[in-house]
Amino acid sequence: MTTISIIGSGNMATAIGARAAAHGHTVEILGRDSVQARAAADDIGHGATVAEYGTKPTGDIVFLAVLYASAVDIVTHYGDKLAGKIIIEITNPFNADASGVVTTPGNSITQQIAAVAPADTQVVKAFNTIFRDVLASDRKLDVFFAGGNAKARVRVSALLESMGLRPLDAGGLETTHALEWAGILLMGLARNGGGFGITLGAE
Amino acid sequence: MTTISIIGSGNMATAIGARAAAHGHTVEILGRDSVQARAAADDIGHGATVAEYGTKPTGDIVFLAVLYASAVDIVTHYGDKLAGKIIIEITNPFNADASGVVTTPGNSITQQIAAVAPADTQVVKAFNTIFRDVLASDRKLDVFFAGGNAKARVRVSALLESMGLRPLDAGGLETTHALEWAGILLMGLARNGGGFGITLGAE
Repeated sequence: MTTISIIGSGNMATAIGARAAAHGHTVEILGRDSVQARAAADDIGHGATVAEYGTKPTGDIVFLAVLYASAVDIVTHYGDKLAGKIIIEITNPFNADASGVVTTPGNSITQQIAAVAPADTQVVKAFNTIFRDVLASDRKLDVFFAGGNAKARVRVSALLESMGLRPLDAGGLETTHALEWAGILLMGLARNGGGFGITLGAE
Repeated sequence: MTTISIIGSGNMATAIGARAAAHGHTVEILGRDSVQARAAADDIGHGATVAEYGTKPTGDIVFLAVLYASAVDIVTHYGDKLAGKIIIEITNPFNADASGVVTTPGNSITQQIAAVAPADTQVVKAFNTIFRDVLASDRKLDVFFAGGNAKARVRVSALLESMGLRPLDAGGLETTHALEWAGILLMGLARNGGGFGITLGAE
């Protein structure tokens, strides 16, 4: 069991935190809106705490559960306070109608975050192919992840497994753009008969 | 039961044909190399036939089971002989190390094929997230597909289901680029512990 820090206090932050807490991890929320951060910690329960936004996260693994447009700025703002951490970012950089992404190959949001993060910080993408309500269920879900170095991915894999999830390693940073497009595929399936309870996986 | 025409005589053509034939469909192979086409038909069995390359396919549904680099030229070559057909193309336009695709958003291979196909031809992408050996097994597999109009996708869905597969409609032509990137995601999973028996799906 470990301490998980989560930057963000929206629906996905709460769902990730709740699942981590339910599986015995200690959860710390860092949100710009302190009222919303408190509410998220209360929703998560299990003794989840709130830390002041911008302070050094307690956990070695830090979820960045914010919208894609603010992700790079937030990591820049935190700067050296994220040194040595593993950042798990969950963004979906969808265009206006979710028919495509606003990023380009080689410059995914994960890669943009890695470019501004401290040199010894590992940035991994995960959870962007799981709808919030699906994550909030107690289903055993497949979670694709990619990014960081091999050592970081081993740790992320172990964490995901400890949260009742099935981790599926898709590779290094170069695969994160494929995960961004997987978010579009998921939206396509949901809108064309699959519904928003559908989730991607592998077997 | 229906007649399925397959342009191409490689591994994927054989695997698709064998699955269709095993589920009661009549299979016709159209291959540029007549010897290889004959061999593919023999492998498929169940009375699969060979038709001369370039002649009008018998089936209303025509699989285009060729490499991405030749797909557009082949459809151009067939021209009006594909009028009114549903083309199911299976290409993966991977770059040299399969870390990304050589296409761009809005200009997937499927979209490029649709641009040169007769106006009343519907072009659908499927099978690009299933490795050949996995398709050749008797597993019940998830098959993502996208492209064409809603009516064409209903027919493709019914065909896939009749082949012992689970069809998953991802939407129109605009989603086909996401499927191209799903091929890269599949490669990433295969190379990072998943192995080449892994296949994508949804639940």
